[in-house]
Amino acid sequence: MKNGETELETRIERLLNLMEARSLDGFLVAETKNMLYFTGFSGGSMLLVLRDGESTLFVYGVNYEAAKVETREASVELVKQEESLIKKVTDRLRTRKIRNLGFDSLAASTYLKLKESSDGVAFKDASDLVWTLRRVKDPSEISLMKKAAELTSRGMEKAAEIIEAGISEREVAAEIEYEMRKNGSDGVAFETIVSSGSNSAFPHGGCGDRVIKKGDLVVIDIGAKYRDYSSDLTRTFIIGKPSSKQFEIYETVRKAQELAVKTARAKIEAKEVDRVARDYISKAGYGEYFVHSLGHGVGLDVHEPPTLSPKSRDVLVEGNVVTIEPGIYIPGFGGVRIEDTVLILKEGVEKLTESPIQIYF
Amino acid sequence: MKNGETELETRIERLLNLMEARSLDGFLVAETKNMLYFTGFSGGSMLLVLRDGESTLFVYGVNYEAAKVETREASVELVKQEESLIKKVTDRLRTRKIRNLGFDSLAASTYLKLKESSDGVAFKDASDLVWTLRRVKDPSEISLMKKAAELTSRGMEKAAEIIEAGISEREVAAEIEYEMRKNGSDGVAFETIVSSGSNSAFPHGGCGDRVIKKGDLVVIDIGAKYRDYSSDLTRTFIIGKPSSKQFEIYETVRKAQELAVKTARAKIEAKEVDRVARDYISKAGYGEYFVHSLGHGVGLDVHEPPTLSPKSRDVLVEGNVVTIEPGIYIPGFGGVRIEDTVLILKEGVEKLTESPIQIYF
Repeated sequence: MKNGETELETRIERLLNLMEARSLDGFLVAETKNMLYFTGFSGGSMLLVLRDGESTLFVYGVNYEAAKVETREASVELVKQEESLIKKVTDRLRTRKIRNLGFDSLAASTYLKLKESSDGVAFKDASDLVWTLRRVKDPSEISLMKKAAELTSRGMEKAAEIIEAGISEREVAAEIEYEMRKNGSDGVAFETIVSSGSNSAFPHGGCGDRVIKKGDLVVIDIGAKYRDYSSDLTRTFIIGKPSSKQFEIYETVRKAQELAVKTARAKIEAKEVDRVARDYISKAGYGEYFVHSLGHGVGLDVHEPPTLSPKSRDVLVEGNVVTIEPGIYIPGFGGVRIEDTVLILKEGVEKLTESPIQIYF
Repeated sequence: MKNGETELETRIERLLNLMEARSLDGFLVAETKNMLYFTGFSGGSMLLVLRDGESTLFVYGVNYEAAKVETREASVELVKQEESLIKKVTDRLRTRKIRNLGFDSLAASTYLKLKESSDGVAFKDASDLVWTLRRVKDPSEISLMKKAAELTSRGMEKAAEIIEAGISEREVAAEIEYEMRKNGSDGVAFETIVSSGSNSAFPHGGCGDRVIKKGDLVVIDIGAKYRDYSSDLTRTFIIGKPSSKQFEIYETVRKAQELAVKTARAKIEAKEVDRVARDYISKAGYGEYFVHSLGHGVGLDVHEPPTLSPKSRDVLVEGNVVTIEPGIYIPGFGGVRIEDTVLILKEGVEKLTESPIQIYF
């Protein structure tokens, strides 16, 4: 089944309902992933949805033939080389007498041009409407995300197989990515992190030519993409017998993650899940070293709503897919992060990523 | 050498000169690649450059330790969880009495918030100033781009080695990416395209599970990333003996590319290089099937200025790195594209990507 084929019809319909509740008579979708979500095609330039259901995907010549084949739920309109996309959109707003236009995400320069050339139209940032839809995954999305997570778990299995003193960070990344790709991944959801030794103390430590050594902490954070859906999984490896401090940090993160995974469920405040993990880490004396949020939503984007952080106002609901990923990072010493991607259920969660937690190699 | 280490000092200085010429007393850099270009660090949230040279990179906690190690030419300021980035920036604008602020690229919502909370500051889209700098590569950039191109060429060599009837598009992509990665690539500059058969008629045809068959045209468009720099190379393979139509299309594209490569040099209008290729293809009767621009700049982004298209106002200069990539795409039949990444010289170009043009397999 193609991305959301069965649900595409209801997605634009659901957007129309949300628009009506906010008195918007038009909605301009400019963000690629959102266009993909509504139409099944990612090569459009803008999607205009009008109150009466008229939906137009504006597409440049380079993607026009593909758009005609792949686009659902919107008519495809060619933007020729000599034409202006802004003019085509504002002409349509004028002829259809649109007054209140929501938009998802516009560059300031595009926003200013649109405003300038469309008299009497109020432009309203309404990206939250799209997120209201996208943050709750439908069955077709969940099945694609399970596949993405399965591929990611296989990548981590490969990492566990090959990691040892003497191999470089880059070689480990190459093998992980190759394993995921051969098995059906469309690529990586984000730049693979294999950060070893003191690099592991940087949460986004990257991946370079450093050769992994005995005694290293190695944070491996990976995600396969499958039919446009992302996944996100982190394990931390200790090369050789852990020192008592490595062990203490590792166990603190592991238990914090376990607690948070047990806490997460529909109808709980996202900040409460963050709090459970953060409190545990703080009581162990490492609070100041947990320098990021507990987690984030995953879907067509690898970072999307809801957010699991101390300041989050989100409440989890069934069908959210989020990461749970506490970490402790001690500058100069190293870091530990343990992360899974989970599906929020009425009671509890379903782990989409599955990878053993091993620390001895 | 790290990205642009020797030139970083002059990059902010050169921005200051451009700001002065446009009467800007401040410049807000919000685009990740631009922050990386000026500071050597890609994990910042905003970079504020003031007339007197005071430069501040605002960074959230998650990247703070890494920023302190990697940032050049700007002081690093922590944005705490409970703080607002917008407020920190607008406070600075107020205390430093900034009146005319250029910016590179802001989301409309951020732009509106910044405007609202900074009385009396004029915000000016000045992304062109940054592009004035970034479009001309300095020696350290050229050396990184040569390495990226070399890795990309190796990937294509691997493709030529393994491509045959019976292998799937995805398998070919997996082998190419693995080859580039093992040899030093940091990942792909864009999603690898291996599009075969009638899929090859879509310029952005993607890569799926289709099994390559005898008689197929297969467009392979790849790019390795090396230390944040991209590369871009396309070859089209014909599986088996080409039909006379395949041969004709192939030869038309090949000669158009050859002509355009011979035409490109410093001080020529970019649209003139496009015209040479487009005229050749049109005269062969395929003009309507060349549905995209001839090429684009490559650097930290894989698509950046200058643009080689019929409407382009760019003039090529020494140090530009651009693609030259004519194509013919016949719906239902298939497509051919041949592309190299080239460095513009005073006289002519230097091809950075190198890959034989073979059509028989």
